[in-house]
Amino acid sequence: MSPLSRPSIGLIGLGAFGAFARPHLERLGSVLGHDPARPGGATLAEAASQPVVVLAVPVARLAEVARAIAPHLRPGALVVEVCSLKLRPLAALRAALPAHVEILGTHPLFGPQSGKDGIEGLRVVVCPGGGAPLRLAARMLRRLGLQVVRMTPEEHDRQMAWVQGLTHLLGRVVAGLEMPALPHTTSSFDQLMRATAMVSQDSEALFRTITEENPFVEEVKMRLRERMEEILGPSAMPLAA
Amino acid sequence: MSPLSRPSIGLIGLGAFGAFARPHLERLGSVLGHDPARPGGATLAEAASQPVVVLAVPVARLAEVARAIAPHLRPGALVVEVCSLKLRPLAALRAALPAHVEILGTHPLFGPQSGKDGIEGLRVVVCPGGGAPLRLAARMLRRLGLQVVRMTPEEHDRQMAWVQGLTHLLGRVVAGLEMPALPHTTSSFDQLMRATAMVSQDSEALFRTITEENPFVEEVKMRLRERMEEILGPSAMPLAA
Repeated sequence: MSPLSRPSIGLIGLGAFGAFARPHLERLGSVLGHDPARPGGATLAEAASQPVVVLAVPVARLAEVARAIAPHLRPGALVVEVCSLKLRPLAALRAALPAHVEILGTHPLFGPQSGKDGIEGLRVVVCPGGGAPLRLAARMLRRLGLQVVRMTPEEHDRQMAWVQGLTHLLGRVVAGLEMPALPHTTSSFDQLMRATAMVSQDSEALFRTITEENPFVEEVKMRLRERMEEILGPSAMPLAA
Repeated sequence: MSPLSRPSIGLIGLGAFGAFARPHLERLGSVLGHDPARPGGATLAEAASQPVVVLAVPVARLAEVARAIAPHLRPGALVVEVCSLKLRPLAALRAALPAHVEILGTHPLFGPQSGKDGIEGLRVVVCPGGGAPLRLAARMLRRLGLQVVRMTPEEHDRQMAWVQGLTHLLGRVVAGLEMPALPHTTSSFDQLMRATAMVSQDSEALFRTITEENPFVEEVKMRLRERMEEILGPSAMPLAA
């Protein structure tokens, strides 16, 4: 039996996504959770020395966490990140982690909101690597009922600039409109509100990752600005200096 | 038995909404449909001389149609309009129709898309009037399974500037973005696409009515422009002259 068939999993980061992921990971093996903001769990060294190490930390803290765990990682360990971007996070991990570990980039296309009733059938993007542990990891993800989609990091970031970038940008726009109370609505309005409410519950850190750190999101913003001017007309007021 | 308990209904305008409404109106009484673009139905005079006359015509053509039917209307007839706005259409009808008819402003908060699987439980706004025929009309709408919501024309237009204005403006923005193929999406993105697809199937005339002829929609556009600039940053390019 492969050591990855029921591995011990170090889970570093127990914020919104880490806390949401934990019970699902526990279906695959025992989980040692570590989060400096939540004392009482495993130490960083304990969590980082397991055969599988899942990093559920914001993109902005990924390089720092990678440097902190590097000395504790065992040879052949599988380090999994779950960021909403792939190009920059994977480059940061490759730069900070020792050559004797395998790195797996994943992006679960769901979160605490969309996965609150279960994750069966939901999608996770996996950036393809060559090694056997990565094939085993894909098998583990399928054991959770997930649909595994393979993409290169660049292809992932290009698509997510639209899928997540557009949704989060419009979510923020709508959330800040300060609409009056609207007791009588249409189905399309209700659906628009549900779509924007889902993303507006995500953290500020995730919003910044998705809308500022994806190299392809600038094009989405440009197209959105052009299209807004076509539909709304240009701003009537000169911009303040 | 009141003549309105199973009235003959003249239905003027058999475009997207009129054609959609017809089978529902036929549950209330016999329907004489007239549309100059679809010969073979009732004449304008025939449709206009029924005890109930439903005008399913674009706001832009309402005054002209009202002037055309005026000579054929019978005293005490109930003239119902179904426009997405209330202030201007009701003023146009009051100006063009004889004093011996009752005018009922309604706005079904659904259409061919959102009502394609039935209209049971959906909402219709009715602008309150005093007369007995109007109470009977509300009863007829309830017989169709509709939830009747009373609002003044101004209150209606203020709310719909947001409910419909915002949805149609953002629907147009998203529809014109020319996104690449995105085979792997999130639930919130899918919901955003469903909301915008619903309204982007509506006609150009309805889009203009909702986003240009509602006196309160200018504020929605202004708030949307301000909020877009906050979220996207101001346009980098100077505006063309």
